Amino acid sequence: WAVARQPARSDLALDRWDLVVSPAGRLARGGVELTDLVTRFGSPLHVVWAAALDRNVAEAMAPLGDVGTTASDIFISYKTNPVPGVLRRLHAHGIGAEVISPYELWLARRLGVPADRIIYNGPAKSAASLRDAVAAGVRLINANSLGDVDAIGAAAAQVRGVASLGLRISLPSMWGGQFGLAATSSAPVQAVHAARAHGSLDLRALHFHRGFAIRTAADMTGYVAEVLAFCDDLRRRTGWHPSVLDLGGSLTTPTVGAVPARQHRLNRAFATDLLPPDPDGCLTVGAASRLAADLVGRHARAVGLDAPTVVLEPGRALTGDTQLLLTTVQDVKDDGALRHAVLDAGMNVAEPTSSEYHQLFSATAPHAPAAHSYRLVGPICTPADVVYNNWRLPPLAPGHVLAIMDTGAYFVPFSTAFSFPRPAIVLQTGAGVQVLRRAETFEDLAGLDAPEPTG
Amino acid sequence: WAVARQPARSDLALDRWDLVVSPAGRLARGGVELTDLVTRFGSPLHVVWAAALDRNVAEAMAPLGDVGTTASDIFISYKTNPVPGVLRRLHAHGIGAEVISPYELWLARRLGVPADRIIYNGPAKSAASLRDAVAAGVRLINANSLGDVDAIGAAAAQVRGVASLGLRISLPSMWGGQFGLAATSSAPVQAVHAARAHGSLDLRALHFHRGFAIRTAADMTGYVAEVLAFCDDLRRRTGWHPSVLDLGGSLTTPTVGAVPARQHRLNRAFATDLLPPDPDGCLTVGAASRLAADLVGRHARAVGLDAPTVVLEPGRALTGDTQLLLTTVQDVKDDGALRHAVLDAGMNVAEPTSSEYHQLFSATAPHAPAAHSYRLVGPICTPADVVYNNWRLPPLAPGHVLAIMDTGAYFVPFSTAFSFPRPAIVLQTGAGVQVLRRAETFEDLAGLDAPEPTG
Repeated sequence: WAVARQPARSDLALDRWDLVVSPAGRLARGGVELTDLVTRFGSPLHVVWAAALDRNVAEAMAPLGDVGTTASDIFISYKTNPVPGVLRRLHAHGIGAEVISPYELWLARRLGVPADRIIYNGPAKSAASLRDAVAAGVRLINANSLGDVDAIGAAAAQVRGVASLGLRISLPSMWGGQFGLAATSSAPVQAVHAARAHGSLDLRALHFHRGFAIRTAADMTGYVAEVLAFCDDLRRRTGWHPSVLDLGGSLTTPTVGAVPARQHRLNRAFATDLLPPDPDGCLTVGAASRLAADLVGRHARAVGLDAPTVVLEPGRALTGDTQLLLTTVQDVKDDGALRHAVLDAGMNVAEPTSSEYHQLFSATAPHAPAAHSYRLVGPICTPADVVYNNWRLPPLAPGHVLAIMDTGAYFVPFSTAFSFPRPAIVLQTGAGVQVLRRAETFEDLAGLDAPEPTG
Repeated sequence: WAVARQPARSDLALDRWDLVVSPAGRLARGGVELTDLVTRFGSPLHVVWAAALDRNVAEAMAPLGDVGTTASDIFISYKTNPVPGVLRRLHAHGIGAEVISPYELWLARRLGVPADRIIYNGPAKSAASLRDAVAAGVRLINANSLGDVDAIGAAAAQVRGVASLGLRISLPSMWGGQFGLAATSSAPVQAVHAARAHGSLDLRALHFHRGFAIRTAADMTGYVAEVLAFCDDLRRRTGWHPSVLDLGGSLTTPTVGAVPARQHRLNRAFATDLLPPDPDGCLTVGAASRLAADLVGRHARAVGLDAPTVVLEPGRALTGDTQLLLTTVQDVKDDGALRHAVLDAGMNVAEPTSSEYHQLFSATAPHAPAAHSYRLVGPICTPADVVYNNWRLPPLAPGHVLAIMDTGAYFVPFSTAFSFPRPAIVLQTGAGVQVLRRAETFEDLAGLDAPEPTG
């Protein structure tokens, strides 16, 4: 009955993703029905839409215009979507690499990213990777702690190099915990003194990462004001100011939002629809970059300093809405009040749906009335494997294909090989489709294991 | 101050895991210091202890004794720890394979498990894998839904075979949701009639899986009583009774327990120690098997039927306490009230610690006083990457090695390749150590990706 009382679903419009309904009534894009992609490349299947990626990059890299006196720069967060075929396309447009592990550093170098287009962050940079980073001459290594300042200095000394250093600072309104020198402690001042006294360290930058979403211009304005106030305070206490101001990530995907806890409970208990976020007020990477450069530039003029270069490290804002995940209904179990549709993608490849709104469409019958509410579950043998507790859809049957939208951030890195191999990733450019990453095979899953001992 | 008030930690004793402190003051087993394993095989590192695996298997497969008139059988849950080197060792002792996906079915066959030692479960069995399973002649295929009964029948007909069928039933006290035919609905009766009318189906079994932990004899006795009451009821309604009673898994690891929510909150807010479960009252696989066979046998005699074969599908009870995870401190960040130790293993390879008690020791200094409380975090750039919010340990420094105990269930399958490759798995047999699964390399992580397009 909860379903019967509800109005039509408040889905976001198909054309936000260049999607249309084909003459045969299927979801299509670039003249290709999405169901055909599953037939050709298997299910589940990640599909990257090149036009969206190119559009996001072009917007992010647009000239700064009248704030052009303050330099700004964009580095893609590798951890968000570490797929070489996606990263190459971003780098081709001049976007740098923000890496947080020895593997990601290695990957950026392998993809041909020049060292001065790499920023190395994270709480767990190994000594060996720090030596590599200094020897290569990466743009910036951001220290996470006082111990990390020492470790970076020691690594630089070992390779007889000088590390271009930043200090990660955590303000009370940001993620803290394991991250950064607490602004409320003496650690930032200690770190400035330690770094400036170290012959192998060239202290250039401060690094901040809000963590909590920066969705609107007001969010960004408030964030930058706090950062600048801290910079002023640090300058008063140390006489030092950064030539690079790294503002981190936290920009969002317009069509994705955290599901409020109450909405989540209502959805589970009463099948009340989850509601999409308002995509229209969402700050783009380009707008965020221009706004930050403007604020930082004005502030620099006001205090009589050269403006630092403003760095952003977006992840989901660049790639989130450029990818979708196709999944096929395996079974429909309807033996009581609650209809379960078992999908071939669950917590193993779609972990973010447990806390985020991602628009979902039937690729098989996108325009049929959403007559039934389904609990969409994955293939893993745990009741925790729920994609959505209730989502209204046309009547489902085995073989029907669903499209989970905006899977370009954190779906791939959070994937597991729990009982099922991980899916292929294809890039669709108009009607053309190429495989970026092939699906894992059964042999792959046992491929690192020793053969049976013969002894 | 919360720490200062606390008594000595209530750690479980080292000898539960055959661990000792070496003359040099390191944690050791089989004459090998665990820190040496990290030096030899890298960090993080999974270490399987062969003696524990052999002990658990021997206990599980001990003769039934005076309940020997009721046959009983053990199948290892592949999803719990799908490492070929571990599974081979279990199969060598006569344990069968319980698989829940096409991959796991393939793996069991590849490991040489005879088809009649394989049970195929799960909500997402593909049509192709069902055909393979029927053609091979697997011991049992358990249907998850009415649709699944049809799908198994259709697959069997396609290969001109007969499927040995079970029906998964969910009683109100068990996991329900996507799993099984609800006992409170008409589905079980419908399924019995449909299966018996189908020429390609040989209905033999009922399958139950409690989901909620079976930790004590009382838990098992109550569970079996409910199952038998359902069997009686179904027999009255259909005239049919099973020749195989598959009671599923849900047996536990003695030294692992769910962390109560209140304890979790106190640990986070006040650094109050997490407390280990009481390992001594925990039902072993062998004891569970004997108890279930006894209960089922008595019931059969009481109602005048031949006793069905009792099947158990343990996972964590067989492998949970046979493996540990070594992890190395990368950095210690201490700039205020809370000390953070950054480890090279976090949510990417130790996901179960977010909800379960796993004993943790310093492998570097196991006997030093646990003077400080540390927030143990992983290497991933999210504040959600917490292994334990507070754990009291001797003073830590980069390079110190910790041992997370009882990682033989669900640690490996829930692992991701988020920014870091997955670790090696070694088998220690006394002083001897062999690699079961080598660590992923950087090349592996990008190994399924297409090379740069030349066009």
